[in-house]
Formats: sequence, structure tokens, C-alpha cells
Amino acid sequence: MSSQPLKIVVIGGSAAGPKAAAKARRLDEQASITIIQKEADLSMASCGYPYYVGGVFDDRNQLICTPAGIVRDPNFFEKAKGIEALVQTEALSIDRTARTVTCKHLPSGETRTLQYDKLVIATGATPLRPPVSGLDLDGIHTLHSLGDADSLRKIRDERKVKHAVIVGGGLIGFEVCEALHLAGIRTTVIEKTGSILPFLDPELSKLVENHVRTHDADIITDNGVAAFLGEDGQLRGVKLDNGTELPCELAVVAVGVRPNIALAEAAGLKIGAQGGIEVNASMQTSDPDIYAAGDCVECTSLITGEKVRAPYGDLANLQGRVIGQNLIHEGSATFPGITHTGICKIFDYTVGFTGLSASDAHARGLTDIETATVAGLDIPGYMKGKLLIGKMVADRKSGRVLGFQCIGPGDVSKRVATVATAIRGKLTVEDLANLDLPYAPPYSLALDQVIVSAHVLENKLLGRMQSLSVTEVKQRVDSGADCFIIDTRTPAEFEEQRLGIGEHLIPQGALRGRLDELPQDKDKEIILYCKISLRGYESAAILKGHGWRNVKVMEGGVEAWPYPREK
Amino acid sequence: MSSQPLKIVVIGGSAAGPKAAAKARRLDEQASITIIQKEADLSMASCGYPYYVGGVFDDRNQLICTPAGIVRDPNFFEKAKGIEALVQTEALSIDRTARTVTCKHLPSGETRTLQYDKLVIATGATPLRPPVSGLDLDGIHTLHSLGDADSLRKIRDERKVKHAVIVGGGLIGFEVCEALHLAGIRTTVIEKTGSILPFLDPELSKLVENHVRTHDADIITDNGVAAFLGEDGQLRGVKLDNGTELPCELAVVAVGVRPNIALAEAAGLKIGAQGGIEVNASMQTSDPDIYAAGDCVECTSLITGEKVRAPYGDLANLQGRVIGQNLIHEGSATFPGITHTGICKIFDYTVGFTGLSASDAHARGLTDIETATVAGLDIPGYMKGKLLIGKMVADRKSGRVLGFQCIGPGDVSKRVATVATAIRGKLTVEDLANLDLPYAPPYSLALDQVIVSAHVLENKLLGRMQSLSVTEVKQRVDSGADCFIIDTRTPAEFEEQRLGIGEHLIPQGALRGRLDELPQDKDKEIILYCKISLRGYESAAILKGHGWRNVKVMEGGVEAWPYPREK
Ligand SMILES: Cc1cc2nc3c(=O)[nH]c(=O)nc-3n(C[C@H](O)[C@H](O)[C@H](O)COP(=O)(O)OP(=O)(O)OC[C@H]3O[C@@H](n4cnc5c(N)ncnc54)[C@H](O)[C@@H]3O)c2cc1C
Ligand SMILES: Cc1cc2nc3c(=O)[nH]c(=O)nc-3n(C[C@H](O)[C@H](O)[C@H](O)COP(=O)(O)OP(=O)(O)OC[C@H]3O[C@@H](n4cnc5c(N)ncnc54)[C@H](O)[C@@H]3O)c2cc1C
Ligand SMILES: CC(C)(COP(=O)(O)OP(=O)(O)OC[C@H]1O[C@@H](n2cnc3c(N)ncnc32)[C@H](O)[C@@H]1OP(=O)(O)O)[C@@H](O)C(=O)NCCC(=O)NCCS
Ligand SMILES: CC(C)(COP(=O)(O)OP(=O)(O)OC[C@H]1O[C@@H](n2cnc3c(N)ncnc32)[C@H](O)[C@@H]1OP(=O)(O)O)[C@@H](O)C(=O)NCCC(=O)NCCS
Ligand SMILES: [Ca+2]
Ligand SMILES: [Ca+2]
Repeated sequence: MSSQPLKIVVIGGSAAGPKAAAKARRLDEQASITIIQKEADLSMASCGYPYYVGGVFDDRNQLICTPAGIVRDPNFFEKAKGIEALVQTEALSIDRTARTVTCKHLPSGETRTLQYDKLVIATGATPLRPPVSGLDLDGIHTLHSLGDADSLRKIRDERKVKHAVIVGGGLIGFEVCEALHLAGIRTTVIEKTGSILPFLDPELSKLVENHVRTHDADIITDNGVAAFLGEDGQLRGVKLDNGTELPCELAVVAVGVRPNIALAEAAGLKIGAQGGIEVNASMQTSDPDIYAAGDCVECTSLITGEKVRAPYGDLANLQGRVIGQNLIHEGSATFPGITHTGICKIFDYTVGFTGLSASDAHARGLTDIETATVAGLDIPGYMKGKLLIGKMVADRKSGRVLGFQCIGPGDVSKRVATVATAIRGKLTVEDLANLDLPYAPPYSLALDQVIVSAHVLENKLLGRMQSLSVTEVKQRVDSGADCFIIDTRTPAEFEEQRLGIGEHLIPQGALRGRLDELPQDKDKEIILYCKISLRGYESAAILKGHGWRNVKVMEGGVEAWPYPREK
Repeated sequence: MSSQPLKIVVIGGSAAGPKAAAKARRLDEQASITIIQKEADLSMASCGYPYYVGGVFDDRNQLICTPAGIVRDPNFFEKAKGIEALVQTEALSIDRTARTVTCKHLPSGETRTLQYDKLVIATGATPLRPPVSGLDLDGIHTLHSLGDADSLRKIRDERKVKHAVIVGGGLIGFEVCEALHLAGIRTTVIEKTGSILPFLDPELSKLVENHVRTHDADIITDNGVAAFLGEDGQLRGVKLDNGTELPCELAVVAVGVRPNIALAEAAGLKIGAQGGIEVNASMQTSDPDIYAAGDCVECTSLITGEKVRAPYGDLANLQGRVIGQNLIHEGSATFPGITHTGICKIFDYTVGFTGLSASDAHARGLTDIETATVAGLDIPGYMKGKLLIGKMVADRKSGRVLGFQCIGPGDVSKRVATVATAIRGKLTVEDLANLDLPYAPPYSLALDQVIVSAHVLENKLLGRMQSLSVTEVKQRVDSGADCFIIDTRTPAEFEEQRLGIGEHLIPQGALRGRLDELPQDKDKEIILYCKISLRGYESAAILKGHGWRNVKVMEGGVEAWPYPREK
């Protein structure tokens, strides 16, 4: 008895949708599979838009073609994937009782009703817009669709715009900032909260700010957009919450996205507390015949167990693939959850993160944590190593690594991938402290940044290193606190660059011979640092060995100091 | 009651020894710590020698200085570390009853006896030499000590040598090969066994061979050195096992190392079956007051539980650090074991590995394994992605990942670090299949190589993909086996490059319309491939969906084909 071919309908034709469809096809050559896609294009590599806009590459087709150069249009989907793709077609409603989807071909206005056995909702998200006046002026953009990318690319090519404002200091905001910078446009990023890149702890965020400023782009924090200002329907500037007006001919709004749940909601599917479609580990919605994936769903944090929204391209593909399997073999695959891992290029820096920042952890009531901030090179100096500044977060009691942030010109991506995998494996600081990584001089230090981070964290957990963050030291200095600060670098280093916070220069190698220069009061707070605070830490051990009881290392050293310096 | 300062003596002053000493000092400012070091230098970054020899950098001090530029000589050890370092001093014997070490200052011949409470043996290893005639000729080198590096660097700078032979096709052999190539020396690597880089499976090893040959360096496998040939005490050539004679003025022997265990053995410490000093997880030898670390010990494989030798610089440092802790707080730290992770730059390729290769697994009786070979880009084509060819090995029953090898011009190091961490966390293929990695176009594909490797492995484990290795296909072709081979690429790709093994060109997108060109016999073996065998795999799914029962994908596709091609 040969059964009827399974009828699969997929709403949404970019990442999660086509992935689910393609995977289902590989498991069932007979199924009827239809993708309904509102836009004209399919399978767009949205994450590549900033690089296309910035002119890193010029061939738009690269955003929608296979590695072999074949454009993923309806013809490709038909021929290569055996999938019918209806483009410029919007799904209008789902009838769960009749198991149908009604959709409209946008150019012609014709509507059609498709029967399904299994339905996939992969409708993605829509960029948020701040609720301020002037939003309809010409010159205000988002970067979300390929159409948006086309518009911004045109602006780049025309070379008329001189000043732009980016509203929102998140990943996409800074990718766009760099793209516009490449296009010769002077750009200011406006961030409403106190610090950019909310997944970073503030002191690292501040270092990225400094870096952006060295590239002739500006950042304004603690200040939202109050209004867009225009003339003759054309954007001429933005007004900030504090009244400042910034002239600009272009504004790109990048303040986050909200899941496209209207269809699902109207069909009576459960929506989660975070505003995304609720799904179980099989990516099944509250209707077992309807799956959902990508930017429109909520998923589970493997760290906190909470439901979270995680609008990332890799996850959309992974979730789509899980659905593809479950469409054909119900319950055969699960998506376990996420570890909050992401990355972004910002000029010569890479900014990466996985798991929780210290601020995240605190905000979630996880307060029994320890952190270590480690600055250092990615590979040896003789191989032209570049700086990495990382911060690892661990649970004090279990020692489990909960998070890692890393920034800098060095190879951040490798370290973040490593720690993301460690978090997935529930590894502890102790496990990471003896990790067997691939070491050779072109690729890492003998003890890689990840391992050293675990060592420093271990030292702190065992009470072998007491420390202060750069922020805490700055507060002490600003408040005139009574502490004795020692820079443990060499005189040459001190000559070249110095903080100027009342520090005494005592090079680490000279310390044992100069103990008499230290405060007699063995309980007085002594703060030590060097370039990265390795020598600061060694010096602290010496002082503790000689009876000083209140000795602290400033984590990350001069390299991690985000505040103005004397020199 | 203040007790006597602890007396610590460390034998060996390069990686493990100084690390143990330095860590102990940080935990005990009062202990007396002495390093006995045979050579004139201390704390040498041996792993950097090939890059110094090749002229990647010119300042020899970089091999022995801190990141702040301070040379780690006895003065530095005294001042910065509070450690006495006796250089050009050889430890001659250990008296475990008297707890003394007798040593000799080599320039003066004076001997001295040092008392210890705790002793560390970190004597490293000695390069092996093949037992053949002519070994004493001038022009035969190893690259192990800084003195060796000096000699080879001198040869580079003098630019007289034109032809060199490297004996041994392992990591160091190829690093030296590249260094000599940079020095303008025509180099041939001689490997006794059938394939270079023994930690790679043969088909990957062959791809590296091909790559080396494109750089005008030669490789001879399956052929050992039978004799070094000379005139007037000067090397003039080598004679191989098969009688061939190769003229050369320089030979570098790199056939592995043997642990320096003489002192330990003479002192009655237990030596393991692999020829290294036996230690427990605290890195304690059979005498609880004596620790040992680095190239002279055996450690435990976290994958097989076996004792193994793992002469790597990262491990020497990690083990030294564990000892440093145990010297001061006995039993406070353990070194859990290794995952066999290493890496090496070979011209424009990186070659990395972690865990077991398929050959390793088989040699250890682990035969119930599955593997997946995946070729693909590291980052998107539009970001100028580079090729990676990886092979992942997993245990069939548990799904646990056992190993990963990766080669190519792409960013191998990140993928190997990721899988090494996964192996450490005992992750399964299923876990890796949904890993949340840091994705953005400058850093990876939406689904990274590591994830795709897990997907392909999963497909094989679930019986959704049947496949052959390139070697198996080659054997079938050579033996004239009756199979139907399909190249599923585009005509343009086929025009540019093709295997010429009797294949039929049926582009993947055309396959559904050309099923009539396929063998009528649905049991006939059909072999499919494309550039990387993604389209080969999709095509296989189509054929299986249409009733063909014996359909196989050639893993890795054209990119992984190491044999001669028609085009
Ligand atoms: C500029 C930019 C840069 C990014 N960079 C990264 C990055 O570096 N790393 C990363 O991990 N992620 C990145 N992302 C996020 C990533 O692109 C998304 O997470 C991913 O595209 C989500 O896939 P999706 O399939 O869920 O939704 P989408 O890709 O948004 O696709 C949903 C599709 O559904 C269609 N649709 C919606 N409603 C309907 C309807 N009713 N009927 C028919 N069709 C409908 C939409 O037109 C859309 O094409 C970036 C996103 C942008 C915009
Ligand atoms: C060219 C080269 C490249 C390498 N590349 C890499 C790489 O890329 N990645 C990697 O992980 N590893 C690499 N290694 C291996 C790494 O250098 C070693 O694993 C590491 O140095 C071992 O450290 P150790 O302290 O155990 O021994 P060693 O570094 O060998 O130090 C032992 C020291 O002990 C001294 N000694 C021995 N006997 C006595 C005695 N009786 N009295 C006093 N002193 C004594 C020796 O003179 C020596 O200096 C490389 C090695 C070489 C030679
Ligand atoms: C391309 C797209 C349609 C998915 O199609 P797909 O056919 O599932 O995806 P791929 O072509 O990557 O992979 C096809 C199959 O080949 C397998 N494969 C990949 N490389 C392989 C190799 N070298 N050898 C064998 N199999 C391989 C994959 O595992 C996959 O099979 P599986 O899922 O059954 O395990 C969908 O991902 C998409 O639209 N992407 C573009 C948009 C996007 O991702 N945007 C967000 C990020 S910018
Ligand atoms: C350098 C050497 C003497 C070790 O000395 P060391 O003082 O233990 O090593 P380092 O200078 O790297 O680190 C010192 C301490 O600073 C810590 N540290 C490193 N970076 C830090 C930072 N940014 N902030 C705070 N602490 C830091 C380390 O964790 C270590 O402390 P711990 O072991 O107590 O946790 C030894 O490794 C050596 O001789 N190396 C050269 C030879 C070699 O390794 N060869 C083989 C490979 S080529
Ligand atoms: Ca991710
Ligand atoms: Ca290693």
C-alpha cells in the first residue's frame, strides 16, 4: 500500500524555512513541499548584507547563490531541491481545522489556499522602530531585507551622503557603522543605554567604544533619539533625548527585532512570555502538526533553562534542520537549546561572546559567580601576536564556566568557539585549566588565552589572587580612596604609556629589593598592575609572601584600562 | 613556630621545569627553589625555532624573553622569580635516601650536591637518530636545542647550502622543511613509512603531500635512509633503502624523540611501558617526593585510558603548573590527561588533529567507529573563504566524538580547538550537530565545518548516507569494478577540472529529469560526487527516493581526491 505523498507547507523563505524544506526533501523524495515567501528573493544570506553594503564584495548574487554559483531562485528550488517556491506571495492566514494556508500573490493580488499535512512557520522578525516623530522621512533606513541592502548599497555607490546616524549600538548597528565608514560616510552611533553591545560587560564595551572612535566614527551613549528632523520630507538630522541635534542625511535604525507572530497568534498557537512562538524541543508549536523555527520562536537557554529569543542565522538553520527531520520522522530530532554565542567584526576588532556576562548573570539572580579578565596575545610576539581581552565567568560553587566575552584585534573567534563548546559540555574551570589544545606558534601561545583565563579564574576561586576591575580602581582613584598603587612594568614601558592615577613605578623584578618603599601598614590596600597584570599578579604574590594582607591586582592591566590616561 | 623554608630542586630548565618552579614560588615566597639546567639558556621557546631558522623573525632573544622583552636568564630568574638558576650545570645523579642531587658545572667541571625536600624532574627528551652509517659527518643536524637552531640559522644566513634532506615526515620535519624552503634550499623529506604525518589518515596525508610538492619541495615515502654519504667528513648525500642516492649538503634528522629517563631510572624510579617516567595524576613519580613532567613522562589518554607519550610544549607547561601547586600543597592539583591535540603550519596549509584518527582507532581495537570526511569553506565565498578538509571520527554505539583531523588553507586551528574541547567534554555527534557557535560571515559559515561534520556523521550513523572514501573509489576504478560513477557538478566545473575515472556528468539540478540515463539494475553500485560531495549527497538521496538501492557518495568529492586527475 503506497500512501499519499505528505503535503508540507513552509511559510518564510530565507533561512529556517528553506532549511526545513531541504532537509525534509532529502528524507522523503515523494513529499510535496511548498515554500511561501513574501519577498522576491529566497534563501538570502542576510548576515552578508553589511559586507555587500560596505563594498567588501560587489556581486549581489553572492548573497543568494550556492557555493557553486547557482542563484537560489524558484527554478533552482524546483530543479535542485524538488521544492516549489512561491515568491512574492504572502501567507495571510492559517486554518488549523481545515489544515490550509491562504496566501496572496502580491503582484497580481490573486489568493490561493494550500492544503497541508505539516506546516512550518519561519516568518522571521521585523526590525523595531523607536516611537518618535519624523519616522516617515526619506533617508531613514533599516538593514533587514535584501531590499534594504540594495537601498543602502545604492547610497554607498552614489557617494552623496556625508553624515549618517545609526540608531542602536548593537551588533547590526556596528556592522552598518563599519560598512558606512567604508563608504566614506562619517557615522555616529546613538545608544540609549549606558553602554554599547549589551552582551558585553560595561568595561569591555567601553574598550570597543574607544576602538571605534580611533576609526573616525563617533558614539553617543546614554542618549536616545527623540525625533528625526527633516525638510521637504527629507531627513536632515536627529534630535537626541538631551536636546542635542546632529545633522545627517542618512539614519539607519538598528534597535532590535520583534518576532513575526501575527499569523501564529491569529491561528491560536501559543505565544511565549518573551514574545516568540512557543515550541518544544522538537520545534513543534502547541499544534503538533505545526512547527516553527528561527527569529519568530523562543528557545531554551542551556545555561539558565529560561526561554529566550535568539535571532541568529546559525540557530535558524539548525532549528530548520531539526524540523526537516521531524516533518518526515516525527519526534526523531530535537533542538536542545542555545548557549548565547555570537560574534561581530567592528573595524579591526572582533567582539565575541558566549554564555552569560557578569551583568547577565547578576540580572538573572546568579550572584555567586567569579570572573577573570585576562589581556594577552593570541600568538607569540615573535609571530606578531595580536591583543585579546577576555572575561570569563564561572559559577563559584560548581566551578562551571557560564560565560566568556572576548574582544580585540587578535583571533577572538577561535577562543569564543572553544569556550562555547566548553559551556555546551558543562566543563568547569578546572577542566579548562588543563585543556589539550592545538599549540604551535602560528596559532596560539603555549598556554592559550582560554587556558590562562581558566588559570586566573582558578587563582581567584582559590583565593590566590585578589583583584579589582578597572572600573573599581577608577572609582577608588576618583573618590580619593586611600590606597597605594604600583605599576610593575619597566621604566621604558612607563615612559611610553602610563595611567597617571597616582601610581608608583616599581618594576616587578625590582620589587623584592624595594619592599621598604611600601606602606608600613600591612593592612593598607595596595593595587598592582602592569601591561596585562601578569607581573601585577606575580608582584602581589611577593607582597603577600612578605606579610601585606590587602593586596589586589587590577585585572587586565593597562591594556584593559578604558579611561583616559596621562600618556 | 615558623618552619624551615621548603627546599625545591628542579632538574631541567626549559618548559616544564621553570613552569613548576615559577608556580611554586607564587604559592610560597619563602621556599628555596633551584633550577639545574644543562644548557646555557633557560626557558627556551623551542617551538619557535623553525620560525627563527626560516627567518620569520631575526632577533634570537625573542626565543628566550618575556613578552615585555626581558631575557629569561639567571639574573631574570633571580630578580623576577626569586629562583636560583644554575646554567651549564648537569644533574648527574639523584640520591633518594639522602635527598640530594649531584650536579656538575660543565665549564669548570666543579660538582656540587644540592639538598631537596621536593624534587622535580623535567629533563625533556633527546632526538632519535637512525642507526645507519655516516651519522658523524658534518652537515647532519637535528633541531632540538637552541644550539641546533643557531647552527641551522647560520646555514640559512650563509646561503651556501642548495640541497637538503629531512629525515622523517612528522611535524618537526615539515616545519624544518618550510624553514629551509624559506632559506632558498631545495628540500626533500624522506619518510620510512607509507605516509607522512602519522596522526593523519593516509588519504588526508596524501593531500598534504600534494600541497608540499606545489611548493617545490619533494617527499619520498616508503623509503628510509640506509646511509649518509660523505667526502672528507662532509655530508654529500644520502642513500635510501631502495638504493637511490640523493645528493645534499645538509640533512636534518627529525624521526622523533626519546624521553630522558637515565637519571630517574638510575635513581630507581618506575619507568612505564612507553619508555617515559611513570607518574600519577598529581605528576608524582613512584617516589612521592619526586615529581616529573614534560617530554620525559608518560601521561594518560583521556580517550583510550592508555598511557601515552605526548611530547608537546603546551602539555609540558600545564604539567609543570600542576607540579608547582603540588610542591606547595601536596595533592592539590591533578593533570587529568591528554586528548592528543596538535597542529602545524606546512606552507599555506594548516594541519591539525585531536583525538584519534580512524587508523589510530583501528590500531587500538576500536573498530566500531564511523567517520565523516567533509570538504568545505571556512567562511563564505563572498568573504573569500578558504578550503578546509576535515575528518571526524565517532564511536558508533555511544555517538561520542573520538577524533578530528583537519587540513587546508582555511582556519583549521579554530575547528581543531573546538573539537578538542568537545572531546574533553565527551560530547556526542548529536551534541555537535546543534552546537551554538559564534557565527558571522568574517568568521564562519552559518553552519560551521565542525557542525556540518557532525551532520554528515549523523547521516551516516542513521544510515541516511552510504559512502566510500576516495581511496575506496580509486581501488574500485583501478580494479575495473562494475560501478556507475556520476559527477554531479555543473558542465562549467566539469570543463575546468575533472577526475577522468569513467564518470558520467549529470548536474545535480538535472538529475530528476535524467533518471533514464541511469542503470536499469537498481542494485548496481552507483557512486556520486561533486566538488565537496554536498550535491553528491543530495543526488544520492534523490536516487534512493527513486528506488536505486546501492547508492554511495564519494566523501569529500573532487577537493579530497589526492590521486592524479584527468584535468
Ligand atoms: C544585517 C543583518 C546581519 C546579521 N548578521 C548575523 C550574523 O552575523 N550572525 C547571525 O547569527 N545572525 C545574523 N543575523 C540574523 C539572521 O540573519 C537571522 O537570524 C536569520 O535570517 C533568521 O532566519 P529566519 O528564517 O528565522 O528569518 P528571516 O531570515 O527573516 O526569513 C523570514 C522570511 O519570511 C518571510 N515572511 C515573513 N512573513 C511572511 C508571510 N506571512 N508570508 C510569507 N513570507 C513571510 C520574510 O519575507 C522573510 O524573508 C543578521 C541579520 C541581519 C538583518
Ligand atoms: C623544533 C621544535 C618544534 C616544536 N614545536 C612544537 C609545537 O609547535 N607545539 C608543541 O606543543 N610542541 C612543540 N615542540 C615540543 C616542545 O618544545 C616540547 O614538548 C617541550 O619543550 C618539552 O618541555 P620539557 O620541559 O619537558 O623539555 P625540554 O624543553 O626539552 O627541556 C628539558 C631541559 O632539560 C635539560 N636537561 C636534560 N637533562 C638534564 C640534566 N641531567 N641536568 C640538567 N639539565 C638537563 C635540557 O638541557 C633541556 O633544556 C617542539 C619541539 C621542537 C624541538
Ligand atoms: C541553503 C539552504 C536552502 C539550506 O539548504 P540545504 O540543502 O539544507 O543546505 P546545504 O546545501 O548547506 O546542505 C545540504 C546537505 O549537505 C550536507 N553537506 C554539506 N557539506 C557536505 C559535504 N562536504 N559532504 C557531504 N554532505 C555535505 C549537509 O549536512 C546537508 O545535509 P543534511 O542537512 O541532510 O545533513 C538554507 O540554509 C538557506 O536558505 N540558507 C541561506 C540563508 C541563510 O542561511 N541565512 C542566514 C544566515 S546568513
Ligand atoms: C615562562 C615560564 C618560565 C613560566 O613562568 P610563569 O611565571 O609560570 O608563566 P607566565 O609568565 O606565563 O604566567 C605567570 C602567571 O601569570 C598568570 N597570568 C597570565 N596572564 C595573566 C593576566 N593577564 N592577568 C593575571 N594573571 C595572568 C598565569 O596564570 C600564571 O599564574 P599561575 O600559573 O599562578 O596561574 C615557562 O613557561 C617557560 O619557561 N616557558 C618558555 C619555554 C616553553 O614554554 N617552551 C615550550 C613551548 S615553546
Ligand atoms: Ca551562534
Ligand atoms: Ca596540545
